Amino acid sequence: MGVSTKPARGMRDFLPADVRRRQYVIGVIAEVFQSYGFEPLETPAVENIETLTGKYGEEGDRLIFKILKRGEGAGTGEADLALRYDLTVPLSRVVAEHRAALPKYFKRYQVQPVWRADRPQKGRFREFYQCDVDATGSTSMTVEAELLSAGADVLRRLGFTDFTIRLNHRRLLSAILDVAGVPADLHGTALIALDKADKIGRDAVVTEMTTRGVTETAATSLVTFLFGLTGAANIPALEAIAAFVGTHEGGVAALADLREILALAGALSAGAHVRIDATLARGLGYYTGAIFEIAVADLAGSLGGGGRYDDLVGMFLGQRVPACGLSLGLERILVVMGERGMFPPAVERPPAAVLVANFDAGALGDTLALAAELRRGTAGTALAVEVYPDTDKLGKQFKYAADRGIPFVVVVGTQEREHGQVTVKALGAGTQEAVARDRAAEYIVTNMGTSRG
Amino acid sequence: MGVSTKPARGMRDFLPADVRRRQYVIGVIAEVFQSYGFEPLETPAVENIETLTGKYGEEGDRLIFKILKRGEGAGTGEADLALRYDLTVPLSRVVAEHRAALPKYFKRYQVQPVWRADRPQKGRFREFYQCDVDATGSTSMTVEAELLSAGADVLRRLGFTDFTIRLNHRRLLSAILDVAGVPADLHGTALIALDKADKIGRDAVVTEMTTRGVTETAATSLVTFLFGLTGAANIPALEAIAAFVGTHEGGVAALADLREILALAGALSAGAHVRIDATLARGLGYYTGAIFEIAVADLAGSLGGGGRYDDLVGMFLGQRVPACGLSLGLERILVVMGERGMFPPAVERPPAAVLVANFDAGALGDTLALAAELRRGTAGTALAVEVYPDTDKLGKQFKYAADRGIPFVVVVGTQEREHGQVTVKALGAGTQEAVARDRAAEYIVTNMGTSRG
Repeated sequence: MGVSTKPARGMRDFLPADVRRRQYVIGVIAEVFQSYGFEPLETPAVENIETLTGKYGEEGDRLIFKILKRGEGAGTGEADLALRYDLTVPLSRVVAEHRAALPKYFKRYQVQPVWRADRPQKGRFREFYQCDVDATGSTSMTVEAELLSAGADVLRRLGFTDFTIRLNHRRLLSAILDVAGVPADLHGTALIALDKADKIGRDAVVTEMTTRGVTETAATSLVTFLFGLTGAANIPALEAIAAFVGTHEGGVAALADLREILALAGALSAGAHVRIDATLARGLGYYTGAIFEIAVADLAGSLGGGGRYDDLVGMFLGQRVPACGLSLGLERILVVMGERGMFPPAVERPPAAVLVANFDAGALGDTLALAAELRRGTAGTALAVEVYPDTDKLGKQFKYAADRGIPFVVVVGTQEREHGQVTVKALGAGTQEAVARDRAAEYIVTNMGTSRG
Repeated sequence: MGVSTKPARGMRDFLPADVRRRQYVIGVIAEVFQSYGFEPLETPAVENIETLTGKYGEEGDRLIFKILKRGEGAGTGEADLALRYDLTVPLSRVVAEHRAALPKYFKRYQVQPVWRADRPQKGRFREFYQCDVDATGSTSMTVEAELLSAGADVLRRLGFTDFTIRLNHRRLLSAILDVAGVPADLHGTALIALDKADKIGRDAVVTEMTTRGVTETAATSLVTFLFGLTGAANIPALEAIAAFVGTHEGGVAALADLREILALAGALSAGAHVRIDATLARGLGYYTGAIFEIAVADLAGSLGGGGRYDDLVGMFLGQRVPACGLSLGLERILVVMGERGMFPPAVERPPAAVLVANFDAGALGDTLALAAELRRGTAGTALAVEVYPDTDKLGKQFKYAADRGIPFVVVVGTQEREHGQVTVKALGAGTQEAVARDRAAEYIVTNMGTSRG
């Protein structure tokens, strides 16, 4: 019919094998965060356009997908709605709208797609999932410590062992910039340059800062100090930073926060992974306290990041709502797990463990009944069972099962039916055995391990 | 800030209690369908506009949310993308696009939101979930029988016992209309009138048909015959219909299909629920074979429906792809389960079973460590544990737990810490007991039942 059957540009179809992997990771995330008392929130894909515009800067505004007015507004070319761009603005809206229904400490996780009209590139899509976990209502550092531990638990449960949680503090960065001699109005510029250090190198960072108006003395002092900390253990790093910032009020307060987070995380699973990293800047301007980012050696980007942002969630409420959040990079986690072969075998297979063959058109009812029996199983051995829908040659049915990765085919002929038996063919092992029909599910479960080959 | 914090018109925020209910139902649906070998598919929310337009009729085209062009197309007021309107067109696109990667029999379930710019009404939303299960590639009636049984299994697992699966056949309806004397070009009109019988009554159906050009003899013959079957058991109903349609070719073929579905379903869980209902028309024009609808007595609409539609899924492929599908009415199922109080207690509670109190600022690390211990649990007694983030009076913390529905609060003071003990307060029972710290998880699991009150 001439219409392209590709998904829209920058969007993806997730076939069953993709969905299984995605659901597995999302399932682990949900389970771990629920064990910390976080609860699921879902908001609409579509928001009123005023809810979104002006929240993401000029560049962000351009990347929002806008929806045409309908009805009386049709034909005007105007938009009144827009697609969700992140999960923080919807959280802020929900906190304002449903305030009375939410607990004082609202701890929510939200795993939903967002849409950005970015130029699609390798690994960058126009529809992608964000996975945000935020705790609102408290300024206690227990929140940071538990968020980092829950994040660490998720990654460990997924099989990551080699990750580092880089930890810094927005106010500490400001203090270091102040003390180095970077004027307050150039802090943003300096941080942007600093954020590129991994890519462009330290000398280029100094050059970029001086080009933007930072004195060479200040830029050099800053870069020399920050990168001089590389490799330092947490406590010596904090001591060196304390000596550098001296009595700077914000710096002293930030150091106290970091010391507390380190101490609390030390009692938890995050402790072994946290590294103080004074060069960590995080792009977004809204952070007000601790900031963190999860890194693995073989990935340029991060597997997640976040921080404290006490001034943002209250944007619609008109009052301060303290908040701290962690955003896990679901899409990146999936890529790394795929490259490293980290998915458990059960995730990499279709659900059906058994194909019930269909070769006797006269006994179709009994064929379906057999499938139902295997699905019910005996004593906790319920199986996922597919029935070959068309009556056909057995060879074709065996091939179908093999192509689909279904490990067992069960066949029941007239004679077997009379004797209360079935034949179970294990495709991996290549064996074939007659089994009592009411023991077939048990037999298959017992032989599952050996046949998966 | 003057901006409304309500979700956009016709859209909903799902707070944690809503999400838990939704996830529970979706989880049961996924588990049951997977046990029949169905696999999950996900497609993008946004499709190229040409993929959708012209697929849903004139009215449907008007209800599609259209997305404004960006970049060079910005300002033209033109749309190039649109929001998913159903799950059948995306399935058809996927079957064409990913043909080589899909099995010969592609059995997929898909639970995703769709968007329609309908006038919002009570129970009708502009963003709502569809839950479609389709099996493509086979014309065998085993597909119908298994779909109906999987649907029945889902409803039974959710606690429904009183549902009826109304079963009819598109070609049988045509045969009955032919034999009653309704000309072929008025079949559509007659079916629309017939579909309203529940609402407007039989006499009004006859009137509507005659107004639209059906002779009174034909209309009366049709309505008298169809509603004369009311209450008939399946076999007598089929016999009466067979006598009515006589040798009508389509009618005879359709009756054979229905007899086979009844026989096969009889071997499965659907058997007890299926009722032949020759008045069932189903609105959509694309059905080519069996049609079905799941009804419960106290609901005007249906909990789901579907049928065979052999000419639709191949729309983008340019060749026939046989298919049969069941669409479960997720939103309606949720409403009925809510009204009837059918959700299990565990779904109606927040995840945390324990709140660890925080009243000693000097022992925060140990407080967090205790929470981690309870989360790990002992011998399969892992618990979901929330920590009260701020150091505060115990009374406030007990009240917080009670308000949140968290049944246990664990407190550890200096003395208890020294003795390796904790105090466990059961909010339901109002009891408070000192327990060995390393037995606390076990103690709580043991007392869970009594404290939930």
